[in-house]
Amino acid sequence: MSNRILASDIGQGVVFITSGGTSIPIDPVRSLENFSTGVRGARLAEYFLKANWNVIFLHRSSSARPFRHRLDIEMSPEKFVIVQEDYIKSKDRLLEIQFDTLEDYFGELEKYSKVLENSIASRKMILLAAAVSDFTTASKSSKIDSSEGFSVIELDKVAKALPSVTFSWAPSVPVFSFKLETEEEKIEPKAIKYFDQGVKGVIGNVLSSRRWKVSLIMKDKPTVNMEIDAVNSVIEIEDLLVSRLISVL
Amino acid sequence: MSNRILASDIGQGVVFITSGGTSIPIDPVRSLENFSTGVRGARLAEYFLKANWNVIFLHRSSSARPFRHRLDIEMSPEKFVIVQEDYIKSKDRLLEIQFDTLEDYFGELEKYSKVLENSIASRKMILLAAAVSDFTTASKSSKIDSSEGFSVIELDKVAKALPSVTFSWAPSVPVFSFKLETEEEKIEPKAIKYFDQGVKGVIGNVLSSRRWKVSLIMKDKPTVNMEIDAVNSVIEIEDLLVSRLISVL
Repeated sequence: MSNRILASDIGQGVVFITSGGTSIPIDPVRSLENFSTGVRGARLAEYFLKANWNVIFLHRSSSARPFRHRLDIEMSPEKFVIVQEDYIKSKDRLLEIQFDTLEDYFGELEKYSKVLENSIASRKMILLAAAVSDFTTASKSSKIDSSEGFSVIELDKVAKALPSVTFSWAPSVPVFSFKLETEEEKIEPKAIKYFDQGVKGVIGNVLSSRRWKVSLIMKDKPTVNMEIDAVNSVIEIEDLLVSRLISVL
Repeated sequence: MSNRILASDIGQGVVFITSGGTSIPIDPVRSLENFSTGVRGARLAEYFLKANWNVIFLHRSSSARPFRHRLDIEMSPEKFVIVQEDYIKSKDRLLEIQFDTLEDYFGELEKYSKVLENSIASRKMILLAAAVSDFTTASKSSKIDSSEGFSVIELDKVAKALPSVTFSWAPSVPVFSFKLETEEEKIEPKAIKYFDQGVKGVIGNVLSSRRWKVSLIMKDKPTVNMEIDAVNSVIEIEDLLVSRLISVL
C-alpha cells in the first residue's frame, strides 16, 4: 500500500500528517497524556484528499480518523452512505499508521519522513499536528497498588525531534508545525523560534478558539489569519488552511 | 428525560453504570489518565437495554458509548441501519451523562446513586465499571512552557468514593464493582476486601484477557468464572455477565 500511495502517477502531491496526542505509560493502566482529539488532523487529511493529494496519516490509535470521525448513530442512512462514499473514493490514496507511545511516534516519524524525502512526487509537505509530550517517565510493568502508592512522578525531558525531521530525515520537504497555546500573545514569539529549526511555517491556534481561528506564520511573509463564523459557517477552517498551505508551497 | 428513565411503568429494572477512565489535568493540554476504552461499559448498557432494563450510563466524554461504538466506515449501509434501529429501540430507556475529571465523576456518582436509591423501580443495580484515579494533582491554569519545565508531578491520594455509594448514597441498592489487574492471582484477595465496603459482588478481570474472561466474586457464594472463545465466539462476554448479574439479584 505504501508504494502505491507514493507512486508518481496518482495524486497532485504527497502530505505526511501527524495527529493526536502521545501517551507516556506510568503503569499498564495509567498514563500521562497530551490532549488532542485528532479532529484537526483528520479534517486536514480529508481536504488534502479532496484536493487529490495522497496522504500518510500518522495518528494516535484512539484519536479521530478521516471520514470515520463524521459517523454518528443519529445521522440518516443517506448521510452515512455519503460519508462512506467520500471514504471509498479516497481510501486508495490514504495510508493510516497508528501510534500510542512516544517511542512508537518517533519511530514512525523517522520512517515516513525518510519515505517522503525519497519520494519522487513533485509536491510534498509534512504537517506536524500531533501533540507530543516534552516529558517522559519510567513505566512499571505491573499495575501499581494504590495502597503502596506513589507520591511523585519523576519526569525526564524528551529531546525535540523537529530538527531531525527538517535537517536530517526530510531536508528537502517543506515542514509545517503547529503551536497550540492558551494565550494568544504567546503564539507568534514562540512560532518565530521554529524558523531556526528549519520549519517553513507554523500554524498557530488558541485552545478555546481553535475550531474557527488559525494563523499561518511564515518567515519573511506577513502572517495570514484565517477565521470562520464559529456558529453559522458552512465551511470548516481546515478547508481554508489546506488551500492556503497548497498555495504557499 | 431523567424522570422518564426512572418511571415505574417502563423497564424490568434500573441499572446505573459508570464507564471509562478519569482525567487529572496537569495543565490545559496535559493530563494523568486512567486507561479504559469504555467498551465494557457500553456493551453492558446494551445488554441491560436488551433485557428491557432502563440504563443510566455515566461515561467519560471520549470513551465508548452504547451502539455508537459499533459504527464503522466500512460496515454495509444495511448493517448501519440495524445498529441504528437497535439504538432507536432503546434510546428512551437510556440516559447518558458525561464526565472527564474526578470532580465531574464524583459529583455525578453522588447524584445518580441517590436518584437510584429513591427510585420506585423494583429491581435496581449499580455497576462501577469506570477506572477512577487513586491520585490527583494540582493543575496549572495555562499551558506549562516546556523550557520552564517541571521535573516531578506531585500526587495526592484521593479518598475512595465506594463506601459513600454503598453506605450513604444508595444503601438499599446492590452495588457491584470491577477489579482490573495485570496478574490474575491478585484479583480474588483484593475483591474480598470490597465486601467490607458494602459491595454485593466484584467482577474481576485481567487486562490482557478481559474481552473473553471475567469472574463474578460474591460473598458466601462460589466464584463464577465466565469465558468465551476468544476468536470464534458469536456472543460477547458482557452478554453472559448481564444475564448472571440479573439472576443473582
